[in-house]
Amino acid sequence: MNIPSPFLLYLGHTTDPVGIKTSRGLAEFRRADCLGEFRHDDCPLTLGLPRMTIPEGAAAGARTLVLGIANAGGIMDAALIADARAALEAGLNVASGLHHRLNAVPELVALANSKGLALFDVRDPPADLPVGTGRPRAGRRVLTVGTDCSVGKMYASLALVDGLTSRGETADFRATGQTGILIAGGGVPLDAVVADFISGAIEYLTPARTDDGWDVVEGQGSLFHPSFAGVSTGLLHGAQAEALVLCHDPAREGIRGLPERPMPGLAECLAANLQVARLTSPGVRAAGVCLNTSSFAQDEARRLCGEAGHLLGLPCTDPHRFGVEAIIDNLLCHAPSKPAPIASR
Amino acid sequence: MNIPSPFLLYLGHTTDPVGIKTSRGLAEFRRADCLGEFRHDDCPLTLGLPRMTIPEGAAAGARTLVLGIANAGGIMDAALIADARAALEAGLNVASGLHHRLNAVPELVALANSKGLALFDVRDPPADLPVGTGRPRAGRRVLTVGTDCSVGKMYASLALVDGLTSRGETADFRATGQTGILIAGGGVPLDAVVADFISGAIEYLTPARTDDGWDVVEGQGSLFHPSFAGVSTGLLHGAQAEALVLCHDPAREGIRGLPERPMPGLAECLAANLQVARLTSPGVRAAGVCLNTSSFAQDEARRLCGEAGHLLGLPCTDPHRFGVEAIIDNLLCHAPSKPAPIASR
Repeated sequence: MNIPSPFLLYLGHTTDPVGIKTSRGLAEFRRADCLGEFRHDDCPLTLGLPRMTIPEGAAAGARTLVLGIANAGGIMDAALIADARAALEAGLNVASGLHHRLNAVPELVALANSKGLALFDVRDPPADLPVGTGRPRAGRRVLTVGTDCSVGKMYASLALVDGLTSRGETADFRATGQTGILIAGGGVPLDAVVADFISGAIEYLTPARTDDGWDVVEGQGSLFHPSFAGVSTGLLHGAQAEALVLCHDPAREGIRGLPERPMPGLAECLAANLQVARLTSPGVRAAGVCLNTSSFAQDEARRLCGEAGHLLGLPCTDPHRFGVEAIIDNLLCHAPSKPAPIASR
Repeated sequence: MNIPSPFLLYLGHTTDPVGIKTSRGLAEFRRADCLGEFRHDDCPLTLGLPRMTIPEGAAAGARTLVLGIANAGGIMDAALIADARAALEAGLNVASGLHHRLNAVPELVALANSKGLALFDVRDPPADLPVGTGRPRAGRRVLTVGTDCSVGKMYASLALVDGLTSRGETADFRATGQTGILIAGGGVPLDAVVADFISGAIEYLTPARTDDGWDVVEGQGSLFHPSFAGVSTGLLHGAQAEALVLCHDPAREGIRGLPERPMPGLAECLAANLQVARLTSPGVRAAGVCLNTSSFAQDEARRLCGEAGHLLGLPCTDPHRFGVEAIIDNLLCHAPSKPAPIASR
């Protein structure tokens, strides 16, 4: 998927900061590709980019309007369709991570065709995904796993890629969600894959590699989230990772969307993930812990990282505040795991 | 899904006994609804039903031709389309469990419409499935789990329904695969559900019930099969079962489709399933073990059941050979589990 940049980022009518997380991810991780932001007057949010109308964005050189929002149900509603139409009329391509597809709206398809422009639905999984096999394959793979959804797995994954690259390693971010896919320019939208192909989709995303480079695989969901643990399980099996990095938000009081359900303990969560991962990666180990401490003051953030690190005997950091150097040290001090014969159980 | 019976069962050109397992399932479990079998001259197989041409089946009163075969890739090939067309022309509805859909073949759709007949694709999941919640719900649910795919989970589930019914209990078979769905006349084809909805699909299939009746949920895949463990995980979470029944084929030498991968041990497999199930059913227990001993002589079958039962401390049987009475005893000697507050972890 090659989405032409620069981008005009869409905020639309959104009022909830969580609702613009895809646009925010692009503004943060592909800043150089983002020309401006488009919002209606009732949107109080900003990404700190120049505010532009759609014609202004086109005149400034934007190539694609990115509908980087998440509304309830992922609906392509009339307001969104009108704005997508305006973008096409101004000569911009349109990209979307919403559940409902641009390509399912006949008037947009017709207009894009007549203008020679493209509609990108990043939630469309690749056709003909294989069924996973779990067969040992070459390559160094790290997977982020979490105590819950939305605890910083994408952010941690991108920080690990940067950290590895800054040490002279080759490292690629392997995206599994719509925000990550837009940032990476490719990936597999795992939540849209049919159930029989979850692990196969990840094997497809991270094929055997022998260049000594790393694949840093973006985790999804949590083994302790009763809505999505099947996705997390298939992801662990498909990734065949040599190392896991556990992500957690210490401010989270209950499982996302199910607040009556307590969060798992860190040690219990890590042990369960290692156990599941061992089915296809018998030598898997934990490389570190990433906390999202954005709700805490600096001192408290340091104390939380120290406490979790001590509990688990692993480097623990907030990647945004304190970097990921200790986790990179841990990754690099181990020899690459060879594709091993499957351990007898 | 209300597929009109009686059925004419399709064997077509199939030469591999495994290829007709859906037709065989109907012949075995809905014998009274099966009028005859249709096969071409190159098909050496039989279900022991009267062989009929399609017009003969229609004249005898058949209402639906069931394409109960599984060819490589689940393809709706030219031979199948020709036979489906012949059935419609003879006045029969057509049902299929293949991956490729009858309703995706325009000439069949047009012909069915013109004749006022129906095409049933049992692999189409219901629209608008919910995301699972794991919230405690009323009802008595048993789930069959397995060391591998195709080790007898559907057969064991149907035997448990019969066993419970014969004791005066109300019990319903909840089908999750295409053969089971054709037998039950309804269900959810779990392998065709999008990954985010696996557990939600099972909550939808087995809603809260307060009539003291049982839902016996057909398991799929295995936590130890690296292709499909995500499905098995979501199924365990969605089923919220008070009891699991472990299914195994002692003749199986390696994981299905991945023969280099050893089978898990029974105790390890049961422990892993109970651990995953506890996320939504903290009081879950094992109720018994079902072995498919069809490859063994009677004495050896008894010895294998005795050995596995002793190892796990549970009733162990081959449901086909020895019935499931001891497992039913175990199920009934426990009080219904109440929807419990989620245990703190």
